[in-house]
Amino acid sequence: MKELMRSLGKKAREAARFLATAPTEAKNKALGESARLMREEADALLEANKKDMDALSPDTSKAMRDRLLLTPERIEAIAKGLEDVAALPDPVGRVLASWERPNGLKISRVAVPLGVIGVIYESRPNVTADAGALCFKSGNAVILRGGSDSFRSSAKITEIMHGGLRAAGLPETCIQSVPTTDRAAVGEMLKLDEYIDVIVPRGGKSLIQRITEESRIPLFKHLNGICHTYVHSAANPEKAKRIVLNAKMRRTGTCNSTETLLIDEDAVSSILPGILNALFAAGCEIRGDERICASDGRVIPAVEEDWDTEYLDSVLSVKTVKNLDEAVAHIAAHGSHHTESIITEDKSAAERFLNEVDSAVVMHNASTQFCDGGEFGMGAEIGIATGRLHARGPIGLEQLTIFKYQVRGDGQIRP
Amino acid sequence: MKELMRSLGKKAREAARFLATAPTEAKNKALGESARLMREEADALLEANKKDMDALSPDTSKAMRDRLLLTPERIEAIAKGLEDVAALPDPVGRVLASWERPNGLKISRVAVPLGVIGVIYESRPNVTADAGALCFKSGNAVILRGGSDSFRSSAKITEIMHGGLRAAGLPETCIQSVPTTDRAAVGEMLKLDEYIDVIVPRGGKSLIQRITEESRIPLFKHLNGICHTYVHSAANPEKAKRIVLNAKMRRTGTCNSTETLLIDEDAVSSILPGILNALFAAGCEIRGDERICASDGRVIPAVEEDWDTEYLDSVLSVKTVKNLDEAVAHIAAHGSHHTESIITEDKSAAERFLNEVDSAVVMHNASTQFCDGGEFGMGAEIGIATGRLHARGPIGLEQLTIFKYQVRGDGQIRP
Repeated sequence: MKELMRSLGKKAREAARFLATAPTEAKNKALGESARLMREEADALLEANKKDMDALSPDTSKAMRDRLLLTPERIEAIAKGLEDVAALPDPVGRVLASWERPNGLKISRVAVPLGVIGVIYESRPNVTADAGALCFKSGNAVILRGGSDSFRSSAKITEIMHGGLRAAGLPETCIQSVPTTDRAAVGEMLKLDEYIDVIVPRGGKSLIQRITEESRIPLFKHLNGICHTYVHSAANPEKAKRIVLNAKMRRTGTCNSTETLLIDEDAVSSILPGILNALFAAGCEIRGDERICASDGRVIPAVEEDWDTEYLDSVLSVKTVKNLDEAVAHIAAHGSHHTESIITEDKSAAERFLNEVDSAVVMHNASTQFCDGGEFGMGAEIGIATGRLHARGPIGLEQLTIFKYQVRGDGQIRP
Repeated sequence: MKELMRSLGKKAREAARFLATAPTEAKNKALGESARLMREEADALLEANKKDMDALSPDTSKAMRDRLLLTPERIEAIAKGLEDVAALPDPVGRVLASWERPNGLKISRVAVPLGVIGVIYESRPNVTADAGALCFKSGNAVILRGGSDSFRSSAKITEIMHGGLRAAGLPETCIQSVPTTDRAAVGEMLKLDEYIDVIVPRGGKSLIQRITEESRIPLFKHLNGICHTYVHSAANPEKAKRIVLNAKMRRTGTCNSTETLLIDEDAVSSILPGILNALFAAGCEIRGDERICASDGRVIPAVEEDWDTEYLDSVLSVKTVKNLDEAVAHIAAHGSHHTESIITEDKSAAERFLNEVDSAVVMHNASTQFCDGGEFGMGAEIGIATGRLHARGPIGLEQLTIFKYQVRGDGQIRP
């Protein structure tokens, strides 16, 4: 296993060196051809997916089956996704800054690919195409390790993309899938710090925790999305109701959904009732502190643990705070540095919140569910990062690059 | 020890939260006051340094003693350094990009501090002030762990800077020195991933290797500076001679000094003799491949290991290459991704080199010794990074920041 993974890593490193200077047209051609082949070979892909589905244990949940299933519509979406990435601007080669020194040296900071990216993900087979395309377009070689349940589907998608790479005259090793379902492969992959520059883990908390503990390679990861919406005393009640309802209930299973509502004590009797009525009507369970419970008989008492829980469900914890300072302090103590929003008509309170809250994304009068690469205009994202190095928030094409300095002289020597 | 280090980490995290939004004026005042106090308390600092010097074992090398020694002039340089950092622009709060979405959301990417930085360094006591000031000015709390040989000097410098912080109304915990020489402190420090966001190791290879192996915290590091200068067949002989001489001999002990000279075979008989004469005249030892040895009797035969050696001394390895491709391939195989320079009058060859060589800094017709934060116009640097994440090359104030997104809406919800 060790040798297999090292060989994958070595090939990826070689491909990365080649891909770093590949012309945009060649990369786009590979993506376009991959899309065409995805449609052309849709039947073969459906067949591979059927084998995956047939091999599932009988007690596989319906939700899990749905995540694994490919349909003609979903394959069309995959092909369209590849075309969308081809249409995005190439992030490589951008001149990020340039200046001239008094001695005449011209210095430019230029975007270059990160190198080799490892993506470790769970069930959905479309991640193979999505993540593969984003890493590839940003000039990175990628090693994909999907869940064993979608092994055949992912392998077929990779095979199709190899056809696209060949058509563009690029090495197939730009996009590699780990060719085994053996779980030991992940452990070996996490040791390849010589060949892999960054690992993107996508999946549940236990997967990410395991990778965090084992990896010798830096990660773009987020463990939790404990997002807060803070309704300030100067909030517009109607906006507050609409935004909180959307932030919690538009989708409950995504990391950008609000898990805790903070509300100024001045607003508990005035603004909160409208919000709670809307949430109850939408089928949300509310767990509140004493004050909130006293204000509405339908609220369940929250326990200490609730303030640190990512429900990913139709449940919201609600806490009274004295003022902005207390809201900021609560978020510092219990947040996960993902996304927080303040609802207020008081601009100076909003600016204080935007400056003082230390999260990847801070918002004013908007739903936390806007934290998303597509909604930010990045086109697509490979994940959301809640760490502090390199990039925070949605990881799009630009965030999959780094820079180097090009220095142009005409014979300068250093005194 | 564990409790001591965790307590330092916790205090640093709290200070970082405060410091992240501290006004530029307060930070500059703290630095200015620290400079003033450094001069005022110069005698006490010299006395602390004398105790360090007196405690050295008798077999301490002269070079090491010189690194540890403080003099009135060196203290003045430290004070001046603090004033220089105060005069640099504040990197926090810069709007790095901003755009508006079709739904009216205004998105800004704004520079914020990294958080808490740990600096682990060896002998020179001035690093305490230099590194402390850079981390502090960029809004980061810092934990400094200096070498035990300069323990008293570093502690006194930190104490003086605490005076500066107090004068500006900022918590002393913004800049902390580890209050013990116990080596176990480093091990505990490297486990504080909850409290420290990045570690900057400064010192010899063995220190950096140990930290790389043990650390659970990401590093800004470089292990080796195996820098190459490549003399292309279209080089101007005079420029080539001046640049190579400077790149190798200006200082031989710095990471940006050239360790290997690559030369096109076409240039061995025409351009190389002038370069070698200048190097020999300056006292440099030359280790060359067969071709180079044949061209000049003074050259010692190089062994395979030479191509991977950072001499940090008056020694240069010289290798013949067929052309640009072979030069780029040699650098890919043996370089350390630090700094490489091509000497040529052929602009298209230069551009290919600048694009294809994957190093933090690539140069055309300039000495590799220009790779330096000051020479780049960054004012000061805390080190040179040869990794691929977050920043490459000189780490100045800007590179000690990351960003967050501020999103301003007026009631938007996500469809």
